[in-house]
Amino acid sequence: MSYALLSRRFHQLHHFAHLSAICGWDQATMMPEGGNDARAAALAELSLLMHERLTAPELADWFAAAQAESLTPAQQISLQEMQRRHRQASVLPGDLVQAKSLAGSGCEHAWRRQRRENDWAGFLTNFQEVVALSREEAAIRAEANGGRPYDSLLDLYEPGMNCTQIDGLFAELQQWLPDLIRQVTERQATESVILPQGPFATAAQQDLGRQIMGLLGFDFSRGRQDVSAHPFCGGVPSDVRITTRFDEADFTQSLMGIIHETGHARYEQGLPAQWQGLPVGEARSMGIHESQSLFFEMQLARHPGFVAQLPPLLEASFGPQPAFAADNLARLYTRVAPGYIRVDADEVTYPAHIMLRYEIEKRLIEGDIEARDIPELWDLRMQQYLGLSTAGNDKDGCLQDIHWTDGSFGYFPSYTLGALYAAQLAEALQQQLGSFASLLSQPDGLGNIFAWLQQHIWQQASLLDTDALIRQATGTPLSVAPFRRHLQARYLGRHA
Amino acid sequence: MSYALLSRRFHQLHHFAHLSAICGWDQATMMPEGGNDARAAALAELSLLMHERLTAPELADWFAAAQAESLTPAQQISLQEMQRRHRQASVLPGDLVQAKSLAGSGCEHAWRRQRRENDWAGFLTNFQEVVALSREEAAIRAEANGGRPYDSLLDLYEPGMNCTQIDGLFAELQQWLPDLIRQVTERQATESVILPQGPFATAAQQDLGRQIMGLLGFDFSRGRQDVSAHPFCGGVPSDVRITTRFDEADFTQSLMGIIHETGHARYEQGLPAQWQGLPVGEARSMGIHESQSLFFEMQLARHPGFVAQLPPLLEASFGPQPAFAADNLARLYTRVAPGYIRVDADEVTYPAHIMLRYEIEKRLIEGDIEARDIPELWDLRMQQYLGLSTAGNDKDGCLQDIHWTDGSFGYFPSYTLGALYAAQLAEALQQQLGSFASLLSQPDGLGNIFAWLQQHIWQQASLLDTDALIRQATGTPLSVAPFRRHLQARYLGRHA
Repeated sequence: MSYALLSRRFHQLHHFAHLSAICGWDQATMMPEGGNDARAAALAELSLLMHERLTAPELADWFAAAQAESLTPAQQISLQEMQRRHRQASVLPGDLVQAKSLAGSGCEHAWRRQRRENDWAGFLTNFQEVVALSREEAAIRAEANGGRPYDSLLDLYEPGMNCTQIDGLFAELQQWLPDLIRQVTERQATESVILPQGPFATAAQQDLGRQIMGLLGFDFSRGRQDVSAHPFCGGVPSDVRITTRFDEADFTQSLMGIIHETGHARYEQGLPAQWQGLPVGEARSMGIHESQSLFFEMQLARHPGFVAQLPPLLEASFGPQPAFAADNLARLYTRVAPGYIRVDADEVTYPAHIMLRYEIEKRLIEGDIEARDIPELWDLRMQQYLGLSTAGNDKDGCLQDIHWTDGSFGYFPSYTLGALYAAQLAEALQQQLGSFASLLSQPDGLGNIFAWLQQHIWQQASLLDTDALIRQATGTPLSVAPFRRHLQARYLGRHA
Repeated sequence: MSYALLSRRFHQLHHFAHLSAICGWDQATMMPEGGNDARAAALAELSLLMHERLTAPELADWFAAAQAESLTPAQQISLQEMQRRHRQASVLPGDLVQAKSLAGSGCEHAWRRQRRENDWAGFLTNFQEVVALSREEAAIRAEANGGRPYDSLLDLYEPGMNCTQIDGLFAELQQWLPDLIRQVTERQATESVILPQGPFATAAQQDLGRQIMGLLGFDFSRGRQDVSAHPFCGGVPSDVRITTRFDEADFTQSLMGIIHETGHARYEQGLPAQWQGLPVGEARSMGIHESQSLFFEMQLARHPGFVAQLPPLLEASFGPQPAFAADNLARLYTRVAPGYIRVDADEVTYPAHIMLRYEIEKRLIEGDIEARDIPELWDLRMQQYLGLSTAGNDKDGCLQDIHWTDGSFGYFPSYTLGALYAAQLAEALQQQLGSFASLLSQPDGLGNIFAWLQQHIWQQASLLDTDALIRQATGTPLSVAPFRRHLQARYLGRHA
């Protein structure tokens, strides 16, 4: 009875989240500029309502009563996930939530200009307030959950993960990654790559992208692809909306962008129908979500066996040109070059971008450094990891990302956790089904790969915690080793 | 204080209505088929919430207390509009609302097939339940409001209007309209019209439509135009969404469709900002809304002075052809021909379609006829009014419209009231500003026309009741005479 009441309440919240997701997608893809204020107010109204319904006093009674009810094991897990949501939302005082939301949107809004203008000093005045409120949030959450303040933020995006684990994983990465980057760049220095010659019409790129989405099993009866300034995967499992930014001078990034978002989308489309509308039926974590997009983009789509399928599609879309030769495309799509910008980074240098952000945000939240110390530490680590200095160039340094502007501390590690999970899943899959090279040469190879992900990840939703999910799929807990073996094999030609 | 609480509650409802409108628009224009069940459930959840908030018991106390507060005259009107909404929503028992909603969606769903299959008998089995529940609704509303049962339904769409008034207006129309139709069709029998030769590419039609929308002052920073199976004007005043159905064989209907929806859109975009979010800030009624779309489509855009501006635009979009000569287009756009289908009817025969529906639905709701009697009465009136028989052809007769399938009785008169209001407004405007012929020959003529509508209709929102609004704009109460003068002048060349 109480479980049923909770189930009804969470289905209701899910319906509201549906409307919020579609209106948020509309805001990013369709809405004319003048609609923004009214839309923001309408979405804020719904958020407030959802927060009230999620933290309502009757829920505590229902949770207590539901514990005593006869529930299936799956319902018990479902109940735990509901309680986790309720606890996370209830622990913060309303005035802190509101203050952080206000400070965050003010800081983010000004940042859009300050970044362009390389105005760190201007940014700092708003950002200090965001940091102060985020520290307060972390302290309150840590007090309620136990553990370190930064852990309590990490837990919002990657439940069950903590600093100690991440410190261990990242320390391991740091041992060999800088040297590997050096070796790869030396090796690639003598490689010649032909760049595709544009222009590439947006409509042709969009058609091509939709063909590739079809090849990757995206269900167009339950989703769409559109254009937005910042690519994302939104919507709801029955109607997944992915977006792309097209550049007529270069199709290569947009194409991989579509494949990346298709990975997110298939996870959503593959979530189990019988748990739709309850927290336990949702994606497990941001790291696992990113593992699916990176599995598609990095493990699968940059594999020579997949790249070899592209030339006829590219020629049909854009006409023939020398750059479309399969071996050239394979080199192009595995090019490694240290750079300033995280979102443009290749899979080899990407973790360096994350490690430096992780160190800075962890120390910042825990009071070990202050906001004003960031540019110097950023510059130092960029020099150490990638041999690049950002001194005086904050717009390509610590001002480049949106995450900190609204206080989303704890999110960055998800990207590299996703890369590690993806490599470990890809290795386990190949041990069980055969190599990608062999699978991709078979007509039903892609189908078998997706069926494996469906079974081991998508249909599991949040029924297991992340550790159990990864152990069940791969036989071992999360480890850096498969990612290292993947990079060594792909970029240095060394096979274990 | 209580007024402030009410204002907050209605703003909240407005925000929810915003999200519902955008998700409804998305459902009709963007959503893939597989998203429908989850979307319907999410929208129904929000409707339920809005109904609860609108009928909540505390509102009665707030209304009582607000009466005693010191309010501006505009706030007093605003309070009355809030009370009207609250009363309309509260008067029906919840189980009747639910039963009608269920019966209506079942009947509508089956109708989509039954209409195609000309299956009146099948339709009747569902429809009798819809009629029974609508009669119950009308009786309960009439009991609460006073007046006749049908009046209480009419009041949902056209507040302040009643059968007695409509009977009078329609009786007048009936005196001269059949004869006028006969005269016009005789006169046009000798007229030759060249039909445009397609195909007309959808993209070119869409571009042309947007140019015309621009010419008509549609604000694209606060709205969009897209494609849907059934054209409509949706969204919110800060972000108005109009839709069009394109036919590559014939651009003429789509073009007028865009102009029609642009009339609805400008009304929404022109509503006063200071009342946004409150009932008093919304459009006055369905009839007044339709008056704006018909003012744009019928009064303005089919005027020879406006049609004369089309040839260069059409030639730029589709290349030159003889049909695009201004005088040919003017004849094409004022062609009168009795037909079976309301939505395809010209402005001269359109009222006949409404008068027969009005008579039938009024008698049906008040128990004077039964649902099974409809086909015979429909056929009889079609023969009398338009010389066409629908015997055995219900799909082009009483099965053609969606309105009755879900019990939206009382809506149809709005279309003809809209045509009458539009003619009366156009006459008053021309008396004050000069004829359309003269205005349309001046560079700022359209701007002056829109400024007049802005002042007299759009910025008035619901601050006046419909009668006062029309009197203030035109100096007289609603009358059939301006519509008659308009038809005589345009179609018979007779000027008063």
